[in-house]
Amino acid sequence: MNDGFKQLKPYLDKAMAVQAALVLFEWDDATLAPKAAGANTSRVIEILSGEYFQAVTGEETKALVKECLENPEGLKETEMAQVKELEDQIEQLDCIPREEYQAFARLSSESVRLWEKAKEEDDFGGFAQTLQKVVDYQKKFAGYRAKEGQKKYDALLEGYEKGFSMKELDQFFGMLREELVPLLKKVMESKASIQDDFLTGDFPEEKQEELGRFLAEYVGFDFEKGVFSVSAHPFTTNLHNKDVRITTHYSRRVDSSLFSVIHEAGHGIYEMGIRDDLTQTLLGQGTSMGMHESQSRFFENIIGRSKDFWIPIYGKVQEIFPDPFEKISLDTFVRAINKVHPDLIRTEADELTYSLHVLIRYEIEKALIEEDLDVEELPRIWADKYEEYLGIRPKTDKEGVLQDIHWSQGSFGYFPSYALGSAFGAQIYYHMKKILDFEGLLRQGKVEVIREYLRENIHQHGKMKTTRQILKDMTGEDFDPRYYIRYLKEKYTALYQIAD
Amino acid sequence: MNDGFKQLKPYLDKAMAVQAALVLFEWDDATLAPKAAGANTSRVIEILSGEYFQAVTGEETKALVKECLENPEGLKETEMAQVKELEDQIEQLDCIPREEYQAFARLSSESVRLWEKAKEEDDFGGFAQTLQKVVDYQKKFAGYRAKEGQKKYDALLEGYEKGFSMKELDQFFGMLREELVPLLKKVMESKASIQDDFLTGDFPEEKQEELGRFLAEYVGFDFEKGVFSVSAHPFTTNLHNKDVRITTHYSRRVDSSLFSVIHEAGHGIYEMGIRDDLTQTLLGQGTSMGMHESQSRFFENIIGRSKDFWIPIYGKVQEIFPDPFEKISLDTFVRAINKVHPDLIRTEADELTYSLHVLIRYEIEKALIEEDLDVEELPRIWADKYEEYLGIRPKTDKEGVLQDIHWSQGSFGYFPSYALGSAFGAQIYYHMKKILDFEGLLRQGKVEVIREYLRENIHQHGKMKTTRQILKDMTGEDFDPRYYIRYLKEKYTALYQIAD
Repeated sequence: MNDGFKQLKPYLDKAMAVQAALVLFEWDDATLAPKAAGANTSRVIEILSGEYFQAVTGEETKALVKECLENPEGLKETEMAQVKELEDQIEQLDCIPREEYQAFARLSSESVRLWEKAKEEDDFGGFAQTLQKVVDYQKKFAGYRAKEGQKKYDALLEGYEKGFSMKELDQFFGMLREELVPLLKKVMESKASIQDDFLTGDFPEEKQEELGRFLAEYVGFDFEKGVFSVSAHPFTTNLHNKDVRITTHYSRRVDSSLFSVIHEAGHGIYEMGIRDDLTQTLLGQGTSMGMHESQSRFFENIIGRSKDFWIPIYGKVQEIFPDPFEKISLDTFVRAINKVHPDLIRTEADELTYSLHVLIRYEIEKALIEEDLDVEELPRIWADKYEEYLGIRPKTDKEGVLQDIHWSQGSFGYFPSYALGSAFGAQIYYHMKKILDFEGLLRQGKVEVIREYLRENIHQHGKMKTTRQILKDMTGEDFDPRYYIRYLKEKYTALYQIAD
Repeated sequence: MNDGFKQLKPYLDKAMAVQAALVLFEWDDATLAPKAAGANTSRVIEILSGEYFQAVTGEETKALVKECLENPEGLKETEMAQVKELEDQIEQLDCIPREEYQAFARLSSESVRLWEKAKEEDDFGGFAQTLQKVVDYQKKFAGYRAKEGQKKYDALLEGYEKGFSMKELDQFFGMLREELVPLLKKVMESKASIQDDFLTGDFPEEKQEELGRFLAEYVGFDFEKGVFSVSAHPFTTNLHNKDVRITTHYSRRVDSSLFSVIHEAGHGIYEMGIRDDLTQTLLGQGTSMGMHESQSRFFENIIGRSKDFWIPIYGKVQEIFPDPFEKISLDTFVRAINKVHPDLIRTEADELTYSLHVLIRYEIEKALIEEDLDVEELPRIWADKYEEYLGIRPKTDKEGVLQDIHWSQGSFGYFPSYALGSAFGAQIYYHMKKILDFEGLLRQGKVEVIREYLRENIHQHGKMKTTRQILKDMTGEDFDPRYYIRYLKEKYTALYQIAD
């Protein structure tokens, strides 16, 4: 082994192990920890975050990274990639004073708990002050990180999807707005009537869980390597490729939990598919948030909302919920789960309005970070934008600005990944249709062939390849958002019988 | 603040935070983690254990401890106690090479999983080799730790209950054997017939859980600060005084889970009662394993198996399980839960035979550590001793040597704490009877008065006081095992109408 890398290994190991502990605390906090634990546990998180910071930015670590880069003889490809990833992380962290990094870790852990409480109590006022502190920290950190002439929000975006700055995103979202707003208008004016009232009702949680587990397993989530639980906001996390955890939540809309399970299972399948020699290294994660969301939304929508997907398994839905589904035909069911319904909650949105939800968050994030928008203003601005883009206005904070966990954690710059991911997914879909009998495989219940193709081309590589490299190597093309527009147009003009 | 202590604080904080992470991993492993996670997660545990080791035994830490001890001006009482506790830990750990400490942490984490599997599959053979490795490590560590002329097993005993070496324990267990074996003989020959068949049956787990939660809360386990789950071997663990976690297991014997819940709740109440200024420090744990078991067994037996305890709440048992308890009188129930039944499983033992189970483990542990007994021999020796002391012979490993988790974790020297704890509890009980209307309080449902007394005198102090100091300050006497003999004699001569 390269001598520098050998010396670097204990620091990499420490970073990995402390990171795993932080992930476990985050999971535990969201799913199980007792209410009163909050403040004490946040103190633990503060200290562990400091240890992570130290492992990555310590003088020895930095010197060894330098040495590895200068004397790379004998470094394996994966080792060199680890060194470069570490170099990136040093650049992200070393500019922040350790005390501030730790203090923010503690604050964000407390903030998530306060957000959860505020959401429960529908009380944005009780959370605004904490959120302002989170925003201020993120602005400060973005300022530290920003290269000369770089905007703060661009510095934050880099943490989630490299190569997509505001310039690219303004274009991307501009195209979506231009194409999707008129399409949405046509859909809403169409005479096609789609019944979906049967999706709402008294669906016992244990039955929803049974169906959720079935679907997760059906798409390929391996319960030998995974855990399934409940939390306020569904999420996926992973300790390594043999311990991947997803959550869901239950409501009176049965499709809400079912598609959230397929979505999170998509994230989980990505993490489970990472190569054994990359897991437990800095490369053992999905390559970017956009690519991650491409997989979750691919499973949720492109696979999960297609008629072909349900052909082999609709009987299972009818078996678990004979009332109402025995009386509902497969076609009626599939139309219902694809109905366009401009609605207040992003995670329950149909595919067409979904990007508009993301657009709203993108615009507000930019204002928070770049224009010093005051957090107190959020509920009003949020409502105005929903009225403008979707024609509806939230009556409560719970169905408005408090619905998402992201900002409470300080994740500014994450939301665009959802729209980008959807667009990556569409591009991958049209490519796969060329080389696989995509719909036929779904009809035959052979999801595993599709999943294996994704694993081979995307999942296994972890962070060894960038998003753009993956797209290029797989589809032969650079990222092209027009596939996404095409996908939505084809899908919704057919469903709503709109003349193109 | 004392300058040395101020500098020491970050090391203490790191040790605390890493310890909390290790506790959380242990909890998660036992209750939730996916099966395939094992090896990767053990790697994380290995690295975190190394970080703990480093925080405690690092050169800076040792130098600062020395400085604090030499220049104690301005050190608060709790700070000095932390320094001394750290000094103790340094003595325990610094003699072990870090690589061996880490390797053992990994091994014991793997070993617990293998034990669980072996128990499930009733296959000691598949586990013996791993257990031998665990024993060998513990012997090696004991050798490192032993002071001049000190026996290895004595060095191990110190980790659980200081001041009780083999010399004291041989005397203690000798007295128990001498007094309890004849008493057991009389009980078994007595004509009194006690019916307990109704305790076995089809008791749905969710109903057992409901009753378990009720009982835990009734004795004082605060679910705002606690979690309740299921594991192969019931246990209690704590991240701090506001995050305390207990587990149970379910079987066809309903009293098995109920008393295990009260037992673990007793441990939990101890940890929840620790002062806020001690939690998250090295002093923020129960003072010894013996004192811990005194509390769990006090709640389980002295409180939980008394008739007075059940007077206000037996209706709840009847409400949750109308069949069979509507037809069972309180007296019949209380007699049943106290029936003496020489049996194979320690955790299901009555109070009288319980110490004999512990005695067997004590004798075998001594042989493993001091006489190089081969692990392969364990099933035979185990069976022989059960035949000798209890007149029964296990037919399977599952109901024999595989029943307890302790040895798989490398906890040699822990078992005597169970018998010592029972004896401490009896001494505390006779003391409390002098100053409180113990039975009257239970009859009135005022467990909290008893619990508060224990909190005031034992729990709150954490490790600020030793076991012997606590006993002395509380009862005015040093430890005296005769109270335990008296308690058992009074209880069982009455129950079995034996002429004394």
